This record gives sequence, structure tokens and C-alpha cells, in this order.
Amino acid sequence: MPPHPTLDLTADVVTLTAALCDIESVSGEEAALADAVEAALATLPHLTVTRDGNAVVARTDLGRAERVVLAGHLDTVPLTEPPNLPTRRDGDDLVGRGTVDMKGGVAVQLRLAQTVPEPTRDITYVFYDCEEVEEERNGLARLGRNRPDLLAADFAVLLEPTDGSIEGGCKGTLRADVVARGTAAHSARPWNGHNAIHEAGTILQRLVAYQPQIVRVDGLDYHEALGAVAVHGGIAGNVIPDTCVVTVNYRFAPSKSAEQAVAHVRSLMQGYDVQVTDLAAGARPGLQRPAAQGFVEALGLPVVAKEGWTDVARFAALGVPAVNFGPGDPNLAHHDHERCPVEQLVAAESALVRWLR
Amino acid sequence: MPPHPTLDLTADVVTLTAALCDIESVSGEEAALADAVEAALATLPHLTVTRDGNAVVARTDLGRAERVVLAGHLDTVPLTEPPNLPTRRDGDDLVGRGTVDMKGGVAVQLRLAQTVPEPTRDITYVFYDCEEVEEERNGLARLGRNRPDLLAADFAVLLEPTDGSIEGGCKGTLRADVVARGTAAHSARPWNGHNAIHEAGTILQRLVAYQPQIVRVDGLDYHEALGAVAVHGGIAGNVIPDTCVVTVNYRFAPSKSAEQAVAHVRSLMQGYDVQVTDLAAGARPGLQRPAAQGFVEALGLPVVAKEGWTDVARFAALGVPAVNFGPGDPNLAHHDHERCPVEQLVAAESALVRWLR
Repeated sequence: MPPHPTLDLTADVVTLTAALCDIESVSGEEAALADAVEAALATLPHLTVTRDGNAVVARTDLGRAERVVLAGHLDTVPLTEPPNLPTRRDGDDLVGRGTVDMKGGVAVQLRLAQTVPEPTRDITYVFYDCEEVEEERNGLARLGRNRPDLLAADFAVLLEPTDGSIEGGCKGTLRADVVARGTAAHSARPWNGHNAIHEAGTILQRLVAYQPQIVRVDGLDYHEALGAVAVHGGIAGNVIPDTCVVTVNYRFAPSKSAEQAVAHVRSLMQGYDVQVTDLAAGARPGLQRPAAQGFVEALGLPVVAKEGWTDVARFAALGVPAVNFGPGDPNLAHHDHERCPVEQLVAAESALVRWLR
Repeated sequence: MPPHPTLDLTADVVTLTAALCDIESVSGEEAALADAVEAALATLPHLTVTRDGNAVVARTDLGRAERVVLAGHLDTVPLTEPPNLPTRRDGDDLVGRGTVDMKGGVAVQLRLAQTVPEPTRDITYVFYDCEEVEEERNGLARLGRNRPDLLAADFAVLLEPTDGSIEGGCKGTLRADVVARGTAAHSARPWNGHNAIHEAGTILQRLVAYQPQIVRVDGLDYHEALGAVAVHGGIAGNVIPDTCVVTVNYRFAPSKSAEQAVAHVRSLMQGYDVQVTDLAAGARPGLQRPAAQGFVEALGLPVVAKEGWTDVARFAALGVPAVNFGPGDPNLAHHDHERCPVEQLVAAESALVRWLR
């Protein structure tokens, strides 16, 4: 990879997706990719480009009656070992980190920026950093604080992978550290202590036994989930540790408030200290709004519930109805064998061109 | 502290213990203390002194029927902040780093070297470095490689703290990583994966349900133990992880070989990958041997099993039966408030004089 990689927006969407993936951009390390995106957009005279950290915003200003946002994040989760990059073709699929989550969507955004200079609605293209990490670092949230004017719109489409559907709303997400405590002792005489890791076994048992709910909201079914995403305990090979922390992630229906979600986890983990580290409410699908209905009608695609939390919820919080629509199977997001059918990249581009041209 | 501290072996054992402690000798920094010990022993005409790194060996050569080793390590764990040195008197206790583990024992060795020029058995005094750190740096192990002839004996006493008892043999220790595997997935859609942390719950259940044995060996009861000393899993807050590692420590009776211990843990953790990371057999107490019986009879003190692994096992591996006997409460070893009753220092010296004079 050259020190200053460049992007060719005249290339087809599959080639462009591969080029975007091959510029590694694990969360926090998006600078090279943001530079390349900014440089490529700066060559298009119909767009006004703004940079904020490693986020890039490009806007048409044609005085249209409506303005829509097309948004995507530039970062990916870490690579596998050995690395699942550079991308490669495997039959009809493009394979590698980011092909699904979500450089295919970013490629569609960039192709629309290149090929639709006079859209039927004014467009704000948003490319941002740090979607895959903690709330405080999220580039879209930062943009909302620094330049809320840039995000104002009648409707937003987040190009996260939806496998050809339109996904409405999203589940909320809560992360909490559930702390098992014990008493330290030498591991040759464990009877003098109480093993916090063994105590954490009870926390894991509750998670394994947990029966998640399916909740219908505005006509769509949301599947809740609760599980451990991390566990850490132990200070030395000959010490029975006095602390073990199980980090749990609860994904809850958008009909529940953040506070209700916290109460639910605290109740389930009664007897253990629960420290909430990350909390974001979901977004109701909001498909009854006119701007959302126009998009759904133009695309003519099925509409389902979004299971993952996405930044749709940030738009919802700003009063902008938003949906997810993008190439790739979301079940393969973060997967070691992340791969996207090239046909979906082409189809997503065509569908949005139908709407905007 | 002068640049070349000296030791006065004619001082009483309490004064000498304080002087030894006040020459700081955290593992790896024993040179000044080893120099002082070597210089003090070199003034005694009945001893032949050998130096190996920061270990010092001093031997009588009186042609006695038996030869015994009296061994102790010169190093301590790190000081506290603020430092728990220099030593101070607090009522009947001597307080400070090393008073228990184990400069009280070293002081007893040096007093015997000074005051018993014609012992009933030939004596090899061994003072060594780096007992408190990893295996590869252990000074007694190094001596065993460089000069096994110097360690040959009929019986050995390690002057580690035993709170007035004689502790025979020691348990073996095994550390292993037990690996739970799953399939990674996005934590919003955990049904697409298999949570390795939840899977590790089964490993913890087996540890909690484990009934450790009490094993009688050569008349002493060894309490086996098996438990987790560490657990680690998770790569990101939104990923159901595919790996979780539980590090277990098995302390096993000296009647079991290292291989038997490994087989036991593998059998208990059937279905999981078991990677042994550390393994050391225990030491049988060997109290049926004549040299050991003479010691026990001369001292007239209770004999119990040693629960922790100690360098006694290194003597056992060289074919020398060995016991622990030294001043101080082992529960205070490494403790911030390490302290030793001065009466125990005096009593340990008297007991060994009874045996050797």
C-alpha cells in the first residue's frame, strides 16, 4: 500500500469496494482512508467537502425541496490472524475484512457522488470514523456535536449491510461489567480464600439460561439478545483472584428505554455489582413518516426490523427518520470469513440511482 | 548503608536478621548481600567457601558419617511503597521485608556456621539467589546444574518459614490453559455464533464441582487443590468471541508424578483443549529415611505436610530428602506487614544447635 493511497471513483462499484477495503482502517486508524475519500470527493465540482477529524461530509446544494443524508462509516473491526486482507475474489463473492461492514456501502455512496451530479433531492454524503468502538469516539456523534447543521435532513439512509432488504429502526444496546468478588489466597491453599473466577461461573450460568424476547414494534419484530462479550480475571499464576469481570451486552427492542434496559440487566444480575459502560437506546422504525414512505416506494423492496444497533438511532435522536439499506449479509459482519456477493454491490447502487436520478 | 556492608556473625540472631534485612536484596539485586555473606564466612577457618553467581556455598569437611544441607535464599520480593525497610522492632516482633521470607532463616544458618565449628554431621550451608522469580533464574537450580557435587547430601533442611513446625515434602504444581472454543458472531445476532465465554461456563462448573483429594504420603496429609487462576475472553464489545481461556492451577500430592497430574487435568477437562504451561512435581516428605528421622527426633517438634511448592522439590529431584523448618509465619510471607516474633528466631537457632552440636 503506497503511503498516500488514492481512489478512482470512475471504477465500477466492485473494484471500488476492493480498493476501499485494501486501505486498512481499523477503528482509530482511519486517517489514510479519510484522506483518500476527501481527496477523491474534492475533485467533484458539484460537491462542497468538509472535514472533521477523520469524518468527511460532501453536500450538493441545488435548492431541492428535500435533503437526504447517505451515511456510512469508514472503520472496520480488527483483522483476523492471519489477516483477512487484501480482498480477493472467490467466485461471485468479494472476500475480506470490510466487504460487508461496510465498505460496500461506502463504495455505493462514492459511486453516487460521482455519477449523480444532479440528484432529484439534495444529498449530504457522510463518511465517518470509529463506529465499531465505544460511544465517546463515534465520529457521527462528534459531527452531531461539532456541526449539527451538516446533518440536518428530511430523511437518512445508513448504508449498513441489509442483504437486499430495507431495515427499519434498530435495537438498543447496553454494555455492562458484571463484577464477581471473592477473597484472594495462595493457590496452594485456596481454602483460605474465595475464587472470584469460580463465582463468575454463576454469572455465566444465568446468561446461558437466559430466554430472550421477540418484541413487535411498529409492525416489525425485534429479537432481543443478552450475552457475554468479555471476561477477565486473574493477577498471577499462584493467586486465587479476588475479582472477575464479565462484560455483557444486552440488545433490546426499541420500545424499551435505556433506563428500562438497565433495570432489566440489574435485576437479572442481582447479587453482583453491575457497572454500565455503554448505553444507547434503539430507534423505532418510523416508517409511517412521509419521507420514509417515499424511499420505500421508490425501491420496492421488503422492509424488516434491524437487529443490530446502528447509527440510525443517532439520526432518530436528531429528529431525522432513518433506515438501513446496504449491500452484504449482516450475519457476516465481523465474521472471520466476511464476504459479499458482487451482485449485491451492483444492485444497491442501481436501487439508489433509481431513487435519486 | 555503606557501599560494602559487612555482617557480624558474633551478634545475636535477632540483630543479625535485622542486619541481613537492611541489606536490600530484591530478586536480581543480591550482589551486595552475597558479597557480605561470602566475606563473613571466609573468616571462619572450618569452612570452605565457594561462590557461584550470587550464590554462596560453605562446607565443613570433618569426615563425618553423614552430610546435611542447610539452605536458604538471599532474595526477597519487592519492597512496599513507602518501603517496609529498614527493619524496626515492634514489641516482640521484628518488622520489615525479609523478616519472614526468609532472612530469619539465613541468620540462623549464619549463626550455626559461626557457633558450631565441629558439628556432629558435616554441613553444607547454601545461600542462593532468585528464589522469588521465574524458574529459569532460580539460583538453587543453577547450582544444581553447575555444581551438583556441592549439593550432594543425606538430608536437607530448607529454612523457609514454617511457624515452628517441621513441614515435610511439598505438593506439585501444574498450570494449564483450558481453551473453550466457539464461533464468532455479532453480539446483536448471537444466534449465528456460539459464545466461547458461555462455553467456558462449563469449565468453571467443573472446577466448582471438583472435589479435591486429601492424600496421605509417608504419614503426612496433603490437601490437593484445583482452581482457576485466570480467565480471559473477548475481543470487542460487539463480538461474541470464538475463544475463551481458563488458566487452571492444580496442586497435587507428591505421590503423583507430573505425568499423572497432567492426565488427571486432561481427563477432568475432557472436550476442551488443555495446554500445559508450567509443571513441577512435588517432593515426598521422605521422613522414613534415617537422616530425616534423626532430625525430627532431635527437634521434637510437630511435623505437617507442606502445602505450597518449595525448593524442597529440587533436593528431592537430586535424591536428597528435604524438609522445611524455619522461623516466621508463612502466611505473612510477601505480606506488606511482614513481621517475625523474635522468640521464633531464637527458638529455631536453639533447635538446630540441639541437632548439630
